[in-house]
Amino acid sequence: MFSSSILASAVRNVPDFPKPGVQFKDITPILADSALFRRAVDALIEPYSPGAVDQVIGIDARGFIFAAAALRLRAGFIPIRKKGKLPFHAHEESYDLEYGTNTVAIHADAVAPGAQLLLIDDLLATGGTASAALNLLKNFDAPVVEAVFLIELTALKGREKILQTPVRSVIAF
Amino acid sequence: MFSSSILASAVRNVPDFPKPGVQFKDITPILADSALFRRAVDALIEPYSPGAVDQVIGIDARGFIFAAAALRLRAGFIPIRKKGKLPFHAHEESYDLEYGTNTVAIHADAVAPGAQLLLIDDLLATGGTASAALNLLKNFDAPVVEAVFLIELTALKGREKILQTPVRSVIAF
Repeated sequence: MFSSSILASAVRNVPDFPKPGVQFKDITPILADSALFRRAVDALIEPYSPGAVDQVIGIDARGFIFAAAALRLRAGFIPIRKKGKLPFHAHEESYDLEYGTNTVAIHADAVAPGAQLLLIDDLLATGGTASAALNLLKNFDAPVVEAVFLIELTALKGREKILQTPVRSVIAF
Repeated sequence: MFSSSILASAVRNVPDFPKPGVQFKDITPILADSALFRRAVDALIEPYSPGAVDQVIGIDARGFIFAAAALRLRAGFIPIRKKGKLPFHAHEESYDLEYGTNTVAIHADAVAPGAQLLLIDDLLATGGTASAALNLLKNFDAPVVEAVFLIELTALKGREKILQTPVRSVIAF
């Protein structure tokens, strides 16, 4: 077991970002410190030994930082990006935001058939992005073994939007 | 020495993306394959042993994927983002695009004093983003030991814009 309290205490709370009333959880102090960054990656992949996962999926942009977990697991890395950013043929999935919609995409040839997939992102808030990402992954014949987040904002109940995939978080606020 | 030809042959050329006439160099086939991803990270950090670099700087968004190199070097990771994306006090630097300007930013407290920095990005094209990133790093009392790129498009002469920092690329097209 990793103690997540050291990581939790390194998260910087930034009030009123990106808009008034929001308490933004800033993970950059964790990333900037080699020992904390290593600890964060170790905690994200704690249940897995190298080879247990074939490909790690990360979501644009902060989720890309955890491609580091793929390296540690000897897995490949697959980016999910906002629509229009991926150059090749892609599957797309739209989801509702507070105002308007957002569309995420994944290359149609990205996932190896039968691959064991691990979805990693920095933050589970309302769960909109994560559930759209998991819907995108339904396009492939490959199981998502877990969706894991460095931070979970439990009051926003994002976990309740993710029904068919086990959810784990390292730090809960 | 790493042979870069295996990596070069895995880069997918996508014609006319993001606009007609551009030959986009798609690195996602490298990332998706665990052995190639590992090889790419190894090539980026080849001159360095763990501890030789204190912090790796990556540029939003694909540069974030090479936070994996920071993990390997036992270094911290610092993101450079587009203006408005970082929540805390940040330094900013603007640079000219073909049409208009772009502004990149870095947290003002991100860099440890005296840290040995390594700038990593996926692509050196015209060099506009890289030179803006290096200008941003002049705000700190910390040397940039090298700017290293997975791909360099040599015909665009981006290297000529980077005068005060050694430049290296893994794959040259």
